[in-house]
Amino acid sequence: MITHTVAFRLRHSRDSDQEAAFLHEALALAGIPGVRDFQQMRQVGKKAAYDFGFSMRFADQSAYDAYNGHPVHVAFVRDRWVAEVADFIELDYVSIEGRDPA
Amino acid sequence: MITHTVAFRLRHSRDSDQEAAFLHEALALAGIPGVRDFQQMRQVGKKAAYDFGFSMRFADQSAYDAYNGHPVHVAFVRDRWVAEVADFIELDYVSIEGRDPA
Repeated sequence: MITHTVAFRLRHSRDSDQEAAFLHEALALAGIPGVRDFQQMRQVGKKAAYDFGFSMRFADQSAYDAYNGHPVHVAFVRDRWVAEVADFIELDYVSIEGRDPA
Repeated sequence: MITHTVAFRLRHSRDSDQEAAFLHEALALAGIPGVRDFQQMRQVGKKAAYDFGFSMRFADQSAYDAYNGHPVHVAFVRDRWVAEVADFIELDYVSIEGRDPA
């Protein structure tokens, strides 16, 4: 199991309609085959300049690769992410010694 | 519910005894009152220079604050973290609109 996470900051104002529209559009990612436990979260830690986080899980690298190449993901990155995200960091996790990230 | 995460890179060589000892010592954090779902993970994403991640959940900010001030946490940061961690990023998440991070 692979847990894929991304923390990011939008170019939009906080609580703007544009912010809400971006988050709504991103829900389409949850419907891509192989995506499990899709979550949208608010990043509240003061030590990092990111306001949101998405996380999802894949059974294996093959499922992750299929997600990356899926037309819905490709279109979202091209049409929304590139223009609307000011900065981001991707972190992907796997278990250590059988301790599976939940 | 608050999900507290930290991704980090150690000064130790990969798969060294020192690395294993650090991860083992860090398990003590799981026993601090208020800590839920403590996990140690390997960060495998190629886009970020961090090798590990810890995550845990707290019921509220009060539980999080108590963890930060707990002697076991304070001692771990002082005796191990500061000396052995080369770089890290903390990301803390809360749900958006009732979507609780699992």
